Amino acid sequence: MQLGVCYYPEQWPEDWWADDAARMVQMGIRYVRIAEFAWSRIEPEPGQFAWAWLDRAIETLHAAGLRVVLCTPTATPPKWLVDADPGMLAVDANGQPRGFGSRRHYCFSSPTYRAQSARITAAVAQRYGQHPAVAAWQTDNEYGCHLTVLSYSLAARAAFRTWLQAKYKSIDALNTAWGCMFWSQEYRSFEEIDPPVGTVTEANPAHRLDYRRFASSEVAAFNRIQTDLIRQHSPGRDVTHNFMGFFTEFDHHDVAADLDVATWDSYPLGFTQDFFLGAAEKARYARTGHPDIPAFHHDLYRGMCSGANKNRWWVMEQQPGPVNWAQWNPAPLDGMVRLWTWQAFAHGAEVVSYFRWRQAPFAQEQMHAGLHRPDRSLDQGGVEATQVASELKALGLHATGDAGTERPAMHARVALVLDYPSLWMAQIQPQGADYNPMEISFSAYSALRQLGLDVDIVSSRADVAGYALVVLPAHLREDSALAARLANSGAQIVFGPRAGAKNQYLSFADGLPPGAFAALAGVQVQRVSSLPPGVLDTVNWPNRALSGNSHWREDVQLQGAEAVAHFDDGHPAVLRHGRSWYSAGWPDAAGWKQLFSRAAEAAGLATEVLPEDLRLSRLGDCLYVQNFSRSSVHYAPSNHAQCLLGARDLAPQGLAIWKLQPSA
Amino acid sequence: MQLGVCYYPEQWPEDWWADDAARMVQMGIRYVRIAEFAWSRIEPEPGQFAWAWLDRAIETLHAAGLRVVLCTPTATPPKWLVDADPGMLAVDANGQPRGFGSRRHYCFSSPTYRAQSARITAAVAQRYGQHPAVAAWQTDNEYGCHLTVLSYSLAARAAFRTWLQAKYKSIDALNTAWGCMFWSQEYRSFEEIDPPVGTVTEANPAHRLDYRRFASSEVAAFNRIQTDLIRQHSPGRDVTHNFMGFFTEFDHHDVAADLDVATWDSYPLGFTQDFFLGAAEKARYARTGHPDIPAFHHDLYRGMCSGANKNRWWVMEQQPGPVNWAQWNPAPLDGMVRLWTWQAFAHGAEVVSYFRWRQAPFAQEQMHAGLHRPDRSLDQGGVEATQVASELKALGLHATGDAGTERPAMHARVALVLDYPSLWMAQIQPQGADYNPMEISFSAYSALRQLGLDVDIVSSRADVAGYALVVLPAHLREDSALAARLANSGAQIVFGPRAGAKNQYLSFADGLPPGAFAALAGVQVQRVSSLPPGVLDTVNWPNRALSGNSHWREDVQLQGAEAVAHFDDGHPAVLRHGRSWYSAGWPDAAGWKQLFSRAAEAAGLATEVLPEDLRLSRLGDCLYVQNFSRSSVHYAPSNHAQCLLGARDLAPQGLAIWKLQPSA
Amino acid sequence: MQLGVCYYPEQWPEDWWADDAARMVQMGIRYVRIAEFAWSRIEPEPGQFAWAWLDRAIETLHAAGLRVVLCTPTATPPKWLVDADPGMLAVDANGQPRGFGSRRHYCFSSPTYRAQSARITAAVAQRYGQHPAVAAWQTDNEYGCHLTVLSYSLAARAAFRTWLQAKYKSIDALNTAWGCMFWSQEYRSFEEIDPPVGTVTEANPAHRLDYRRFASSEVAAFNRIQTDLIRQHSPGRDVTHNFMGFFTEFDHHDVAADLDVATWDSYPLGFTQDFFLGAAEKARYARTGHPDIPAFHHDLYRGMCSGANKNRWWVMEQQPGPVNWAQWNPAPLDGMVRLWTWQAFAHGAEVVSYFRWRQAPFAQEQMHAGLHRPDRSLDQGGVEATQVASELKALGLHATGDAGTERPAMHARVALVLDYPSLWMAQIQPQGADYNPMEISFSAYSALRQLGLDVDIVSSRADVAGYALVVLPAHLREDSALAARLANSGAQIVFGPRAGAKNQYLSFADGLPPGAFAALAGVQVQRVSSLPPGVLDTVNWPNRALSGNSHWREDVQLQGAEAVAHFDDGHPAVLRHGRSWYSAGWPDAAGWKQLFSRAAEAAGLATEVLPEDLRLSRLGDCLYVQNFSRSSVHYAPSNHAQCLLGARDLAPQGLAIWKLQPSA
Repeated sequence: MQLGVCYYPEQWPEDWWADDAARMVQMGIRYVRIAEFAWSRIEPEPGQFAWAWLDRAIETLHAAGLRVVLCTPTATPPKWLVDADPGMLAVDANGQPRGFGSRRHYCFSSPTYRAQSARITAAVAQRYGQHPAVAAWQTDNEYGCHLTVLSYSLAARAAFRTWLQAKYKSIDALNTAWGCMFWSQEYRSFEEIDPPVGTVTEANPAHRLDYRRFASSEVAAFNRIQTDLIRQHSPGRDVTHNFMGFFTEFDHHDVAADLDVATWDSYPLGFTQDFFLGAAEKARYARTGHPDIPAFHHDLYRGMCSGANKNRWWVMEQQPGPVNWAQWNPAPLDGMVRLWTWQAFAHGAEVVSYFRWRQAPFAQEQMHAGLHRPDRSLDQGGVEATQVASELKALGLHATGDAGTERPAMHARVALVLDYPSLWMAQIQPQGADYNPMEISFSAYSALRQLGLDVDIVSSRADVAGYALVVLPAHLREDSALAARLANSGAQIVFGPRAGAKNQYLSFADGLPPGAFAALAGVQVQRVSSLPPGVLDTVNWPNRALSGNSHWREDVQLQGAEAVAHFDDGHPAVLRHGRSWYSAGWPDAAGWKQLFSRAAEAAGLATEVLPEDLRLSRLGDCLYVQNFSRSSVHYAPSNHAQCLLGARDLAPQGLAIWKLQPSA
Repeated sequence: MQLGVCYYPEQWPEDWWADDAARMVQMGIRYVRIAEFAWSRIEPEPGQFAWAWLDRAIETLHAAGLRVVLCTPTATPPKWLVDADPGMLAVDANGQPRGFGSRRHYCFSSPTYRAQSARITAAVAQRYGQHPAVAAWQTDNEYGCHLTVLSYSLAARAAFRTWLQAKYKSIDALNTAWGCMFWSQEYRSFEEIDPPVGTVTEANPAHRLDYRRFASSEVAAFNRIQTDLIRQHSPGRDVTHNFMGFFTEFDHHDVAADLDVATWDSYPLGFTQDFFLGAAEKARYARTGHPDIPAFHHDLYRGMCSGANKNRWWVMEQQPGPVNWAQWNPAPLDGMVRLWTWQAFAHGAEVVSYFRWRQAPFAQEQMHAGLHRPDRSLDQGGVEATQVASELKALGLHATGDAGTERPAMHARVALVLDYPSLWMAQIQPQGADYNPMEISFSAYSALRQLGLDVDIVSSRADVAGYALVVLPAHLREDSALAARLANSGAQIVFGPRAGAKNQYLSFADGLPPGAFAALAGVQVQRVSSLPPGVLDTVNWPNRALSGNSHWREDVQLQGAEAVAHFDDGHPAVLRHGRSWYSAGWPDAAGWKQLFSRAAEAAGLATEVLPEDLRLSRLGDCLYVQNFSRSSVHYAPSNHAQCLLGARDLAPQGLAIWKLQPSA
Repeated sequence: MQLGVCYYPEQWPEDWWADDAARMVQMGIRYVRIAEFAWSRIEPEPGQFAWAWLDRAIETLHAAGLRVVLCTPTATPPKWLVDADPGMLAVDANGQPRGFGSRRHYCFSSPTYRAQSARITAAVAQRYGQHPAVAAWQTDNEYGCHLTVLSYSLAARAAFRTWLQAKYKSIDALNTAWGCMFWSQEYRSFEEIDPPVGTVTEANPAHRLDYRRFASSEVAAFNRIQTDLIRQHSPGRDVTHNFMGFFTEFDHHDVAADLDVATWDSYPLGFTQDFFLGAAEKARYARTGHPDIPAFHHDLYRGMCSGANKNRWWVMEQQPGPVNWAQWNPAPLDGMVRLWTWQAFAHGAEVVSYFRWRQAPFAQEQMHAGLHRPDRSLDQGGVEATQVASELKALGLHATGDAGTERPAMHARVALVLDYPSLWMAQIQPQGADYNPMEISFSAYSALRQLGLDVDIVSSRADVAGYALVVLPAHLREDSALAARLANSGAQIVFGPRAGAKNQYLSFADGLPPGAFAALAGVQVQRVSSLPPGVLDTVNWPNRALSGNSHWREDVQLQGAEAVAHFDDGHPAVLRHGRSWYSAGWPDAAGWKQLFSRAAEAAGLATEVLPEDLRLSRLGDCLYVQNFSRSSVHYAPSNHAQCLLGARDLAPQGLAIWKLQPSA
């Protein structure tokens, strides 16, 4: 458990650098991310590199004993590059090239920009790849931010045609897969196919899905060019990329396959304001953030670099105070920065790195807080980061080697499957205006957490053996390989609505939904309804408990399953078949908890009813108790536990750490 | 009364066709609509026709004894045609051509596309025009769907200039008619005039109205090319087009003038979700649809092919289950498909044709239910269609000859006038953000229906003699010919607000509103107010009844009329002058019912206060009692009636048919 | 105090003109504004002028004894001019030229259009500049209406580059000022800089601010060409321009510097419906308008032509009835036109000129009422204008000389500073989706008015000496010159939140906010929060009074100030330091009134708690009591006052005028 920070030496007088570095060390920071976005400073004129300042910056940090995370500056191609090659620009859905003057204006499919990206990556990696201070690399920055994955440039069109040709081989195969006889959409050659944009009404969903898949693969290919070059010139260093929150425009599992460590940028208050929560929840969590938003992503990104990389992950950017980019930007309550940092560690983060060392007084992000204010004074985030560093040291949790060398294990017995193509399918054909697959995934996750369960969020390719409970809240994609692994896993399995409903071309699964999951679930979905706001069904549970259903419901035929809960009109709402559970609707929080309590009990997992906005995490042999509520809360773990930090009574924004004894 | 179905043989394995046909016959279906959207299958390469599959499909249906409704495939020009002539594409308000990849991407004004449309129409009509199975033709599909009537292409610009020249002869006449001295909008020649789009603020309303008139006439002209060719090559067959719900982009009466039968596509749940109802009503009617939405259109389209065609009409597409295209798409309650079908028959439909035989598992409409599910199993809609067919047969109502040969008569004594140019006028200058002329027309219609009255919806050119009550809820267009017919009709006349307010150029009517209707109404409108949400006036009626007013109110000067009801501040809200009634505001349902009750009484029409969501229709000598509510309802007609189906107690979604005795 | 009217002779038969003129005189009107928008009538073909009709129109008015306000017609370039030079069109943010067919389609930066504008201005000024009837000139019409200040044409781009070069001299200076090292935004030359539009995410705020400054200066430069020509050809006449309500796209103080008289167009009901009021207030004030909307602008525009011009101002367009352009357009209650007219006089207007003499029955504004209806009958606005004229005459307030020669003085002791660059700063980086700097300025103003205070709204360059209380509700721009004047003024000073937060490049003020105001305010702002809807803080005042806070709050460090009021969590909400008060949040009406009551008391100003929607104005030796409420109200001034009009009991929409005695 180590702390880091994002630092932009080019934005500050050089005579501040050494002092900044000394104060970082004093604060307990070990990692410093630099050079992100610095292309125009590194190469102010085409082909003329200005390394001197960056040499000195790295030397300054190195001299202070800090470890450097170096970035490729490709998220911000400079103006001279854009003017020399306007064809490199991404093109929006209206056919307008996206202009220079902010960031991420490039098209992932541009061959000329890929060459430029390789050129600058190689140049930076060659110069600093062997530098002893350089511990890790970050490629680019936040791929896709500001919705830049989908581009409709001529370059993208050409690449899409090539991609389709490679996938389908013959145009007849594509016409069949897409159902092009519908509405006379048939093509005679791949050269006739355009991006699915600008159509009079909805474009063909298979066409749209393939464009999403194509665009996602372009991101991965773009990234791979950089990771290959970095590994060539800077062997032994970790390579990472900083992912985002609730972002689904590309398949993160594909990009992560080329990384050593997954990192992500955690802005709990911004995400609370900008995503699907209702107005009342946005107000309620305005200053704390929804407690499960960071946790959800921690568990998601922990699962990114799975397999050989053993689930290594960091928070690359941790919100240190109010930000500038959400619809509303409140300041976190005092104590939240500390709590978020500990929450990340409790979910297994190797490093929590704050964005940013000091608030910039100029340009787009000037209203984004840092650990320090623009006048160099310590801001509240800095106070709390200092406190965390002290606590880590006092508890002996502060790693002394490089990140990843010493890591306590997570032992989640629950897996939640998140599958990007399934998300795309629901986004392309939501069938109801508010059917958001990320929202239902998050609501299922939150219910699990409210029951005190630790959760791994895994890809559909994950080995689910060993889990006691596997949840698929929004797995629309028919997936017979996963079905087979689930069948063999011995786990209790919970399917959300629409599971397995679609084949890989976003057509109906063979037979009817849930397709490949039908044998497991023991149901056949015969009809679906998306429900307008205000249509709320009651779900009746055997213990007389009631829960609510909205957004969606399905009429199912029992094919072996039995009904566990019913809608008011007697139709089955939740079904059970052997080890499988199926939700024929979109449950509210109470409904998810009813369902998961039963499934967990069947799986032999203990659940508990936690006080509101209290959360538990188990890491190594410790239990981390986190109070996100605005009230004091009492929480006592088993008698055998030893309190390392905090106490049974947790103040608002309070934390307790307990060392658990092996159970008798 | 006969059933039909929409069928797409090209979407299914050929070895299913004969079985499908046999099951259609078994279900009681007589009409099958085919070949819609099949251009790329009929002409896969330019000029190379592939008739064989369609020959076999028609033969298969013919062999089973089914009657075919053949379609021209012009709603979906194939990709090769678009690529060969990109100028055929419609162009949107931002100047962007609308792309290939869905449907309706053509510009009605493109001379080259008109030629292509004529070519394919002639080819299909020549090949199948004399085929004994072919009973009727449908031109294109849903003209204007996805807002495709208005195009801003160069072809449209040229055609508009020609149209203006033909209309105004001299540019001075146009400048005067449009009031172009206002804001220096004067033109020196027709060649200076552009479509009214892209202006800094509102374009000249007369300019906009003429563009609407022009675009509407382009639709009619496009359609007429097809109807002429079909009649030439397929004499004796009915020619129709399938219109849509709440759609106002062209003058349907003009297109209908070239048809034998009007048909429309009835999706009660989709229309309930997508139009002007409030959130509470959308939730309330989510699974039944608003009861008056289908009825309104049945009565509208019954009036389309008036005169020589004797009001022939069908439902060409009947919603059979959940659809895919509305904001939310709930499933209908069991029984609704049966009730909707009977409701259409009760309003005089010759044929009710379901969309579609089987749900497609692929492409854009894969979430649109059919009579069967994608796996060929019978869906709920199919169950209910089968039931209707049985009931028709049991009651002897199933026609045995071709559609239109045996038809019981409607006897509506109430006419509601719907005038497309008037709708355009209110849309161009609503004067209040929520002034929707279709909404006020529908609310007046619904109030009439809640009073138990049968209604004909007629054009402004209709002969209103013989009606006891004529209602003009939104007839903004000054219309002295109609005024004269109303004066001579002997009917009670109810004018909604803004009646007669505008002349044909969308300028003020001579004198002040209600212009040509002033002598009838006995009022002069001196000032109008559009009212923001939350401004609700109370209307006081002589019997101490109260109703509400919102959206709009007028200050009127009495010129012979007397005030029947007053706003709270004493201003007249409803006026009466001889046989005319004038509403100086936008009444709520209670207000319309107060007004219509009085007018009906004066007209000698009996009204009744029906149970909520119960509706009555009289056709021939039968009374059809329809329960759209979610509760059981008791309704007993006069003692002399004989119950043919159902009973006095109607279950939810229930129907009763009573044979009425001639009154004593 | 005189009345005027806007008249368009070209829109009426010539044989009506003399009668119209006679009736104007009879009604008590003295000023007639003409020739606005008449370019196509003045110059129907390029270079061919048609003066005869305008000669006759002016002679007709002159013969009746009316004074003419002549307009340049440049807001409506005719079609032939646009076709000859399409490059003159403004270009929108998507790169689309804005089309002909309404008005204001020109780009302020077009050199060719500037030449055309000068040509037509010179032609009109040469012909009529010395005419004895011509008393004043209006340039163009409502600069910027329909958001036409910002244009992204090639002409604008070129002019912007030139403007930047003149401002920054070197590209390095620009890169530094804008913080271009952030995100590699550095430029190598001015020729690389584009307008800040079409970027992937927010463009650089300094770039955006400079574009706003540039665009504003283009408006002023465009106007100056006209004022110079008019002064050359028509010496001795007043030159004005008619400004708008709540309009902030250019710096009005800069344009006003070239005018003799500021005028504005007052539409109280339209502004009430279209701006930031909530739905409940829009409904409540639907028929009266918010009482402070006209007052705010009267006080704003009175301050426009300050200095040598002694605050001369008119209402050029007074709403006479319902308008056509707001979201909803109710009719004013009877009496409101009279009350608005008197309100303007009570705030110091020289002339109140109604828009328009007669409602046009055609074209875009046909639903905009006039003093007469389209049929020439007198409308309610005309009735009330006639009444005002009579009252003026009866009271001896009707000026007999030309406007501006006899003017009673205002004696406001309160100044509210409104600074356009500060408004732009908050608009560019609001930091919360609903942070509207005009809204907070208006809410502060309204609270002052509710306390019975007269207010001058002044520019940041104003001499604030002599005021007892100076309020800066939204002065984001650091302003050391103003700070010095405030320090020397002796006035109590109230700072709203964000005061002085930004330097001239929209970067952080040196040190931290409130920057140059820090020494006065005695606080340092260390952190800010924008608050989502539903987050409402309570503010506790020493007298146990409570008020509310929303939208915004700041964490401040006391640097000499003391806390006057506190948020519920104990943080300071309002601070006081010597003569300065600082609001660390966005107060509700109660909060503003608490704060201003205290500051006014400290300033020796008497406040009173007025009945709801009653307002007071003092002009010369008179007190004008205005009842905007829908109830009767009793208001008695001091015993020594003499009632000139009205009484202590004011009917709804009622007015009383009292002659005040010099206090004992």
